Amino acid sequence: MPTAALLIIGNEILSGRTRDANLAFLGEELARLGIPLIEARVVADHETAIVAALNALRAEVDYLFTTGGIGPTHDDITTAAVAKAFGLKVIRHPEAVARLEAHYPDAGTLNAARLKMAEVPDGAALIDNPVSAAPGYRIGNVHVLAGVPSIARAMFEALKPTLAAGAPILSRSLAAYVKEGDLAAPLEAIQNSHPAVDIGSYPFARDGRVGAAVVARGTDPATLETVMSKVSTLLDDLGAERLPE
Amino acid sequence: MPTAALLIIGNEILSGRTRDANLAFLGEELARLGIPLIEARVVADHETAIVAALNALRAEVDYLFTTGGIGPTHDDITTAAVAKAFGLKVIRHPEAVARLEAHYPDAGTLNAARLKMAEVPDGAALIDNPVSAAPGYRIGNVHVLAGVPSIARAMFEALKPTLAAGAPILSRSLAAYVKEGDLAAPLEAIQNSHPAVDIGSYPFARDGRVGAAVVARGTDPATLETVMSKVSTLLDDLGAERLPE
Repeated sequence: MPTAALLIIGNEILSGRTRDANLAFLGEELARLGIPLIEARVVADHETAIVAALNALRAEVDYLFTTGGIGPTHDDITTAAVAKAFGLKVIRHPEAVARLEAHYPDAGTLNAARLKMAEVPDGAALIDNPVSAAPGYRIGNVHVLAGVPSIARAMFEALKPTLAAGAPILSRSLAAYVKEGDLAAPLEAIQNSHPAVDIGSYPFARDGRVGAAVVARGTDPATLETVMSKVSTLLDDLGAERLPE
Repeated sequence: MPTAALLIIGNEILSGRTRDANLAFLGEELARLGIPLIEARVVADHETAIVAALNALRAEVDYLFTTGGIGPTHDDITTAAVAKAFGLKVIRHPEAVARLEAHYPDAGTLNAARLKMAEVPDGAALIDNPVSAAPGYRIGNVHVLAGVPSIARAMFEALKPTLAAGAPILSRSLAAYVKEGDLAAPLEAIQNSHPAVDIGSYPFARDGRVGAAVVARGTDPATLETVMSKVSTLLDDLGAERLPE
């Protein structure tokens, strides 16, 4: 099964100013493609930190995605770091320049700062940006996306056909007002009987009552149905009131 | 300046099912304490992955925080992984047992699954959990917290007095309907004049208009005021309409 990792680049995520929205999106999309996200990292806008994380993660997975740091301002240093990680020069990509020229037709608007958004590591292939023209790119197994969620999503849609998908990871869940401590032992027995399915239990509190959502994930629909049928029986045995799906 | 990192443990974050809320909270709190969060990682509920990330991060920073994986179910394996990372035995902590006994007074409710929540690496110091009794703990520079945000926050409040705070990192921001490409060159000049302040520019779109928030962060209030005054003048020079703060 192919695997993926995500590198989120940006001080604003680590300071708590901005809540990342790309991890959840990419996690869901990649699971659907059968390319599970197995790790994510968040690093600051510091070249050394970005290069170290890039090199660690791209060696570990089939597909590495990065978000953030490809805009026109001085704190956008992702391309310099990616080039350094690969030992490549930064070049101005002619097609990227052409797209920016079309997007900024007025004389003087395509200034040096905006032209920075046409720079890529030498050899990179562009990823379309239907939202605001400035492209992302792929170099090796690294896919460099914008940090703005609407643009990251559009870029991911554009590159999706280039990914070698695996077997889609399906997910089934049941939620009930049940205490995890009462559920734990029999749920573990179900997990042990079905090692190909990954069963998780996630507690929640609602209206002052505690409950748990049991989530089963795997690639075989029949096995998932078997597992969830056992979970359903278990919840009935515990007298647990269900939540609507 | 002391530094911190966060290790988020849980398949549900990587699959996109659950959106993490602890990174933003801890990022803000730690900045206020002058202990900036310099990296975060998200790993799955797999012992090898957790151990590797724990050992890498705890060597890198003064304070490592973990969230997730300390509940009663089979997928809660954080304590086993932390003990392994430190080369320590897992023991049942008498005070943690006493707290669980007080929380679960009815005969038979403090079962083996719940008693797992009293297990810690040998030598760990408990972190209070005023929400649901089962404690977190500190071992070395690693602080092990629950994943449920309300509990993670309560545990952080409980341990906060034990952290050696640095100079608080202050943040000032101005947002305006301005295009980043127009702002970039003069903003870089301001950044270059004030290397002790960290200036970031974050684009946004609202009501079909694009804008940018300029954020300056640093420990010296006077320098921050100087920087923001220059940013304010720059936005005026560009004729940029401000957003309310």
